[in-house]
Amino acid sequence: MTNTQVTLVQIDNYGPWTVTPEPRREADLQTLQSRLFADISQFVGARGGYVFFTRFDNMIAVTNGLSMTDHELLQESVGNRYPVTLSLGVATGTDPVHALSDATERLQEAGSAQDEDRRECLEGRAIEEAHRTADDVQIAHFDVINATGNYTDELNAFDTFIEIEQGYAELMRHMRYAHDSLSFFVGGDNVIVVCPDLEEADYEEAIHHVENAVDVSLQVGVGRGETAHDAGFAAKHALETCRADGTRVELEW
Amino acid sequence: MTNTQVTLVQIDNYGPWTVTPEPRREADLQTLQSRLFADISQFVGARGGYVFFTRFDNMIAVTNGLSMTDHELLQESVGNRYPVTLSLGVATGTDPVHALSDATERLQEAGSAQDEDRRECLEGRAIEEAHRTADDVQIAHFDVINATGNYTDELNAFDTFIEIEQGYAELMRHMRYAHDSLSFFVGGDNVIVVCPDLEEADYEEAIHHVENAVDVSLQVGVGRGETAHDAGFAAKHALETCRADGTRVELEW
Amino acid sequence: MTNTQVTLVQIDNYGPWTVTPEPRREADLQTLQSRLFADISQFVGARGGYVFFTRFDNMIAVTNGLSMTDHELLQESVGNRYPVTLSLGVATGTDPVHALSDATERLQEAGSAQDEDRRECLEGRAIEEAHRTADDVQIAHFDVINATGNYTDELNAFDTFIEIEQGYAELMRHMRYAHDSLSFFVGGDNVIVVCPDLEEADYEEAIHHVENAVDVSLQVGVGRGETAHDAGFAAKHALETCRADGTRVELEW
Amino acid sequence: MTNTQVTLVQIDNYGPWTVTPEPRREADLQTLQSRLFADISQFVGARGGYVFFTRFDNMIAVTNGLSMTDHELLQESVGNRYPVTLSLGVATGTDPVHALSDATERLQEAGSAQDEDRRECLEGRAIEEAHRTADDVQIAHFDVINATGNYTDELNAFDTFIEIEQGYAELMRHMRYAHDSLSFFVGGDNVIVVCPDLEEADYEEAIHHVENAVDVSLQVGVGRGETAHDAGFAAKHALETCRADGTRVELEW
Repeated sequence: MTNTQVTLVQIDNYGPWTVTPEPRREADLQTLQSRLFADISQFVGARGGYVFFTRFDNMIAVTNGLSMTDHELLQESVGNRYPVTLSLGVATGTDPVHALSDATERLQEAGSAQDEDRRECLEGRAIEEAHRTADDVQIAHFDVINATGNYTDELNAFDTFIEIEQGYAELMRHMRYAHDSLSFFVGGDNVIVVCPDLEEADYEEAIHHVENAVDVSLQVGVGRGETAHDAGFAAKHALETCRADGTRVELEW
Repeated sequence: MTNTQVTLVQIDNYGPWTVTPEPRREADLQTLQSRLFADISQFVGARGGYVFFTRFDNMIAVTNGLSMTDHELLQESVGNRYPVTLSLGVATGTDPVHALSDATERLQEAGSAQDEDRRECLEGRAIEEAHRTADDVQIAHFDVINATGNYTDELNAFDTFIEIEQGYAELMRHMRYAHDSLSFFVGGDNVIVVCPDLEEADYEEAIHHVENAVDVSLQVGVGRGETAHDAGFAAKHALETCRADGTRVELEW
Repeated sequence: MTNTQVTLVQIDNYGPWTVTPEPRREADLQTLQSRLFADISQFVGARGGYVFFTRFDNMIAVTNGLSMTDHELLQESVGNRYPVTLSLGVATGTDPVHALSDATERLQEAGSAQDEDRRECLEGRAIEEAHRTADDVQIAHFDVINATGNYTDELNAFDTFIEIEQGYAELMRHMRYAHDSLSFFVGGDNVIVVCPDLEEADYEEAIHHVENAVDVSLQVGVGRGETAHDAGFAAKHALETCRADGTRVELEW
Repeated sequence: MTNTQVTLVQIDNYGPWTVTPEPRREADLQTLQSRLFADISQFVGARGGYVFFTRFDNMIAVTNGLSMTDHELLQESVGNRYPVTLSLGVATGTDPVHALSDATERLQEAGSAQDEDRRECLEGRAIEEAHRTADDVQIAHFDVINATGNYTDELNAFDTFIEIEQGYAELMRHMRYAHDSLSFFVGGDNVIVVCPDLEEADYEEAIHHVENAVDVSLQVGVGRGETAHDAGFAAKHALETCRADGTRVELEW
């Protein structure tokens, strides 16, 4: 049974900061946001976690393997090196949406994202070491079949982007409402989905749903593990099997 | 009349590189992609341009103000510091979609994005200095009205993300098909759109379309300039006027 | 009794890489070197270690708290994100110079720094968890008394640099030959020294030696701990006591 | 005749910031300093300049090719992305030491490096475009003959560092006092020196001086150009000639 630990990473008072005393150069905001995300990816990733950029001022991470002390250190390090600070809400649940809802509430109860006085909150609980299992995380790695041949080498780059985006949007909504899962576009034609205990039939259904709704053809590799990296790396290998064998769904167990 | 210079930035042979000889840690790919984007944002931004992360292996930039020599330097610098290389296609057009289509074709004609032998292409033409005008670029900066109050402080972070994403997707398709414009989510609740010569009525129509289609309320500031930064910075200031006055559309001219 | 774990971090075949097929832009080499160092600092620092840039292609780290598995992960992550790779030699000793000599020999035995075929060596041993103590690391943090008043605000910036550099060079040689310690300039007017079990008299002697030899006045805070960070942070606090009380040597125990 | 444009880059009030309200983690300070330097290297380097890390809170750059507007943009961009700000002093001179002295005085007159109220000064003058020539900058690139064979593969890494450092220190003082030149260690066994109009005999003398004083054997390639990059790149090529032909001094003109 999955037991996903989710962290909501929220930049404190970011909207106001970006326009005080005056609006800031957009290229600099993009650089700041991306590099902050990259740093969090290295910190979390080195402990077996995954973080997704989501909206950049609000990022969602799967942090099985990170303790509250680890979260505190991340906060301190960012506070030492950036002109902004982070608030972190941590929660767990048998399904990822439930865990994220709890993590979000932790921060909402502490104060508004644009509350001048709310800074560097650290709320919630991590899974105790003794309670962690090899089934805690289930990750599904989807990609578009032959995106390069069908889109990248054929359409203009924005129309390719629209196609990929439509596939992502349809999958994202379906997985959230039908399966309490969180889906994230991670570049190229790849979407990583954080799932509860789903089965092969659930993934086949998701693929058919997207194909019928927006005519985008996906394949998927699925893995399980104690951490997001363990599950996700197994999922990547399963996806290679799809590519090699021409199958649509491969579970790495 | 707008004369948008668009550059398509494409990482050479990226898909294969990410899985050769074995799949690579996802957290490292996220870090690499984000930091590469951040570097391009600094390079392009220091010359008045904007780059948007788009799919990360394919990025779209508005590069009025950058010469082909500038593009060559960007390519060389990235080649010196990253384990991947970039191909660049540059083109101009009276509307951004047209310019991007030409830029895309330049690269497609040179070879596939996953062609082992196609590396560091530099194709196309920049606008000659003598032909640049203060009307070359039109940028519209949209955001969701009171996203923090309506979504961030109320819903779980993924459901907020779904709402923002729906608004973006609807706006993106409308602006592309009705107005030959390119729309990019840039974080938070912000979307920057690169437009041809549009008027106040066009922006009002776009806002109503999105409101009716997906019930997301947008406001927009619009600017014009010789570069993306000139136009975009004016657009940011216009958006501040929307926030201050409660208006939905403000043109900074 | 100190038990310093030292890691020698060496970029594989770097000299040849910087000039193949042609010399590379110096500004890009500086950027690559600095960002690689910064990444290693974050990785090592998050586990309580310190890394010093030293010669950039060869960096010295105090890695009490990092296992060989941690070292392997660092190597893998760098290999995924940079155009160069790292070899790592790990050793321990009752004095830092001894540990570093062993760490260096581990790599030298595996092959030359410019051996085309030697890539990503990982040699040596980390201290087993059960054997770690609160006395393993001793760190001394020196700085120049009132550098800003005496130099920065008075001399041209290079002559100030020469003064600081002379103080560092004299301290570095003295601490290495008299006390088997490793000294590193860390910016500003600060030098961090990794020591074996030294006493107050040893630090007083070092300060007098430097004052007599090159007329540069130093003060020092010293700390001990299980990791470089524990020892170094205590040393920083001790240095604040020097600044507050006007003393020359303060031990934080 | 050389006409070196030098910029002194100084972080405002850095010392106090590093310990307020409490001392900050050393690994984070190292990361911040290195990444700030790397960013400045990219900004300056893309315009043909060179920046040297020097003391990290005070950095020296050769900025022929950068206008005061460029300097202002660098300042603004750093202010948008870091928790610290920069003050910049710009000056020119027929010898580099003279230019640096003027640049330093500009900042010293504006206020102390640790003056709470002195922030983001921009003082001085850049060379007007019309007055720039292909002789403005002379760069000498020294390295240690066969450092890998003589030191890196033979001694422990710190003793190799001591040897390299002694060679650098001797060269640095000699070049500053005998030839009004500024010398910077740039990693590995490389030292880049910014010179006025020196001749072959001056470089031969410098090499003999260092050999006699500290028994470190150097070779040097020298170049001239309109910018630091033009001169420095020519110097790198000249150094390759030394390596290929076994000569000690090569001038690329």
